[in-house]
Amino acid sequence: MDKITVIGAGRSATALINYLLKQAEKLPWIIQVVDRDRELVEQKIGGHPKGVAKVMSVHNPEALDLLVHESKLVISMLPPTLHYQVALMGIRNHCSVLTASYHTKDLWGLDREARQAGVLIMGELGLDPGIDHMSAMQLIDDIKAHGGTIRSFDSVTGGLMDRAAVDGNPWRYKITWNPRNVVLAGKGTAQFLDHGEVQYVPYQRLFGQTMVWDLGPSGTFDSYANRDSLHYIGMYGLQEVQRIYRGTLRYQGFCQAWKCLIQLGLTDDLTSLQALENITWSSWLRRFIPVSDGDLRVDVARQLDCPTDDPRISALAWLGLFGDEKIPVNEGSAADLLQVLLQEKWALQNEDRDRVLMHHQIDYDLNGNRFRRTATLDVLGSDPAETAMSKTVGMPLGILARHLLTGTSFPTGVHIPVSREFYEPILAELAGVGIAFDESTSILATG
Amino acid sequence: MDKITVIGAGRSATALINYLLKQAEKLPWIIQVVDRDRELVEQKIGGHPKGVAKVMSVHNPEALDLLVHESKLVISMLPPTLHYQVALMGIRNHCSVLTASYHTKDLWGLDREARQAGVLIMGELGLDPGIDHMSAMQLIDDIKAHGGTIRSFDSVTGGLMDRAAVDGNPWRYKITWNPRNVVLAGKGTAQFLDHGEVQYVPYQRLFGQTMVWDLGPSGTFDSYANRDSLHYIGMYGLQEVQRIYRGTLRYQGFCQAWKCLIQLGLTDDLTSLQALENITWSSWLRRFIPVSDGDLRVDVARQLDCPTDDPRISALAWLGLFGDEKIPVNEGSAADLLQVLLQEKWALQNEDRDRVLMHHQIDYDLNGNRFRRTATLDVLGSDPAETAMSKTVGMPLGILARHLLTGTSFPTGVHIPVSREFYEPILAELAGVGIAFDESTSILATG
Repeated sequence: MDKITVIGAGRSATALINYLLKQAEKLPWIIQVVDRDRELVEQKIGGHPKGVAKVMSVHNPEALDLLVHESKLVISMLPPTLHYQVALMGIRNHCSVLTASYHTKDLWGLDREARQAGVLIMGELGLDPGIDHMSAMQLIDDIKAHGGTIRSFDSVTGGLMDRAAVDGNPWRYKITWNPRNVVLAGKGTAQFLDHGEVQYVPYQRLFGQTMVWDLGPSGTFDSYANRDSLHYIGMYGLQEVQRIYRGTLRYQGFCQAWKCLIQLGLTDDLTSLQALENITWSSWLRRFIPVSDGDLRVDVARQLDCPTDDPRISALAWLGLFGDEKIPVNEGSAADLLQVLLQEKWALQNEDRDRVLMHHQIDYDLNGNRFRRTATLDVLGSDPAETAMSKTVGMPLGILARHLLTGTSFPTGVHIPVSREFYEPILAELAGVGIAFDESTSILATG
Repeated sequence: MDKITVIGAGRSATALINYLLKQAEKLPWIIQVVDRDRELVEQKIGGHPKGVAKVMSVHNPEALDLLVHESKLVISMLPPTLHYQVALMGIRNHCSVLTASYHTKDLWGLDREARQAGVLIMGELGLDPGIDHMSAMQLIDDIKAHGGTIRSFDSVTGGLMDRAAVDGNPWRYKITWNPRNVVLAGKGTAQFLDHGEVQYVPYQRLFGQTMVWDLGPSGTFDSYANRDSLHYIGMYGLQEVQRIYRGTLRYQGFCQAWKCLIQLGLTDDLTSLQALENITWSSWLRRFIPVSDGDLRVDVARQLDCPTDDPRISALAWLGLFGDEKIPVNEGSAADLLQVLLQEKWALQNEDRDRVLMHHQIDYDLNGNRFRRTATLDVLGSDPAETAMSKTVGMPLGILARHLLTGTSFPTGVHIPVSREFYEPILAELAGVGIAFDESTSILATG
């Protein structure tokens, strides 16, 4: 019996664990699921005969090392900062390690050691990063194989909700991942390439400088630029592009309203605000507006330079920011408090289904003509446990795990899934379980 | 012979070291000056017979402990993060420690141990924090002693330049302290009280929401809100105020132009920008503006919503941001790059004199009337070494050191100079060396 160990049994591990348990029914596998929360582990395993629950803290390095030692393969769903340590243990114990997180510089530095130990340290094998890499590289490699020269590359992804779940919610958004990251999204300077020119977008302009995406039957969405797109020129081999843009998708209206929260100062995480006992949300918001005797809504609209009946003001009102509910904490940064509010207002309900949307748009020249190839992935959650996020993050990990343990040969060392040997079998099997892109090619100009 | 040890021989230690050496001529003192830079230490001591140079790294805890052990008093001019360690050593070795930095919570936690060891751990004994505390508390205590009730408290301070040194420089500013702090000044949420209402000012609005200060013969200045003024309600015993505001003073025009740098995104320190070889400042700035074929100056003015011939645009131009000089580094955050530019453009010249300006304005009720008391400190640097900053930061430390070692009795424990026993002798002696406030009282309204 080979033991596959999944460390971390949180929300995004559900589909992965279900997939592995199902595979184990016909394969000589034991699926060990590890978390510090016993209830969570047992719930995820659900009494499956091939599942083993283990309760432990990952901050006990000896126990963690023992865990890796007894495993044939480790899939780490831990916070990214812990992956380096797990990778080191994998190398020491000749056990491959898969994660859905970005590989750090430190991790890349383990490549030689991983090769020598004969193990694969695979990162960025979830949704974003993960399916974005694989699906983009499949398109790029195919265009190049046919002799095309890529001129522009756009790729946008969103962790969204099914429309029914956000009916009446002007933000049309709920929190399906780390709420901290939702509140702090976009801090820093976003970078992309347009008309051959590097573009920097500062945080305060980020949610105002959006793009509109008409994705046919999926609907129309906005995107804001996602961190450093320039980095992908080298990673994807796109040295000839005049444009590269990676963005985050939101239903229309979200970005404009979120920009208001930033403008008002409600996303600052540097300064702790004190003594908030007995303060209402509206009196808190009033503190961010220069002193006035006027109506708060009028003052806020003036501050934001928009009419009082603007949809953005309605979006703030819907959150309760003009309301008399008390703030339930005594201190915290503006971002901490906003997070408290959003976790309440944007909480998932049992019947809510989430949605993952990814879209690539690649313009390329071939035989004197300019073409546009697009690919769209639109996945709905199956139920409250098998969310679209959990499926799209977990299935690539599960599929590669199965291939590794059923004898498919892969390179050793530190990798991300940008080469054909990785993405081809994984994308093929993803399509088989309904995680498939709709592709189309059109001609933009003839030579 | 008592040994007084000054750790850190940087720019702001000059006046302190000079003062101590001069005192040592008539007192049984040895002044030991410690820095890792031998040349700097020897230059600061200047061959004085009562001075001892010591070259060492403060990152050697054993050597540092030995240093404290052999000293009667330690004055730490080290970076603030090291003060806790030095304070612990002071307690262990029964040696008092003085600093000009803010006391951290950790440091306050040493109070009982310091009392038991019979030592004084005094912080915030420079200019700001330091002279601001002392001069404000002298006014506040005096008003209260006469039966007044304080209604509003404003206190503004600036580390500026003598007008002659910034002639032709539209910013009228040069860097007289840590350049990193200049570039990142104001990040977070500033807090003050106005009309009895708490006010939060987010970073992106901070340099736009300024106050004008007509300081008579000293001139007219702007201020922006300085961090958390609310904290001073308790510290200064101002529970009855309807307004408390602490601000940073700048010559007029600076804040409006600095706000442009923030709006453009040039003060971001979160994202590293790469591959800047052979880029000019103007092509770098262009990247922060949406792609356009137009004139950069016109595009920037449009982005900032101001005319092309606006003084703010001229201020950006004066820095060379529209120019063809190459950026001298290959990577860094926007703030890193801006710092490189400002350190060049705002460098002190040999003949430049700096200037320290501090102003308090306190409104209070007494016998049914409303009064306003003001106090203004305006200090010019004496020469390139004895700067106004060095004098105002160093002299309070030196004066307290002399009192401690000539037998004046002070409380033990962890303190800042907000009580009369500390501020009275120090302010009296500061006035004797020309660091004196001009005070005036006027009646605002009769009851």
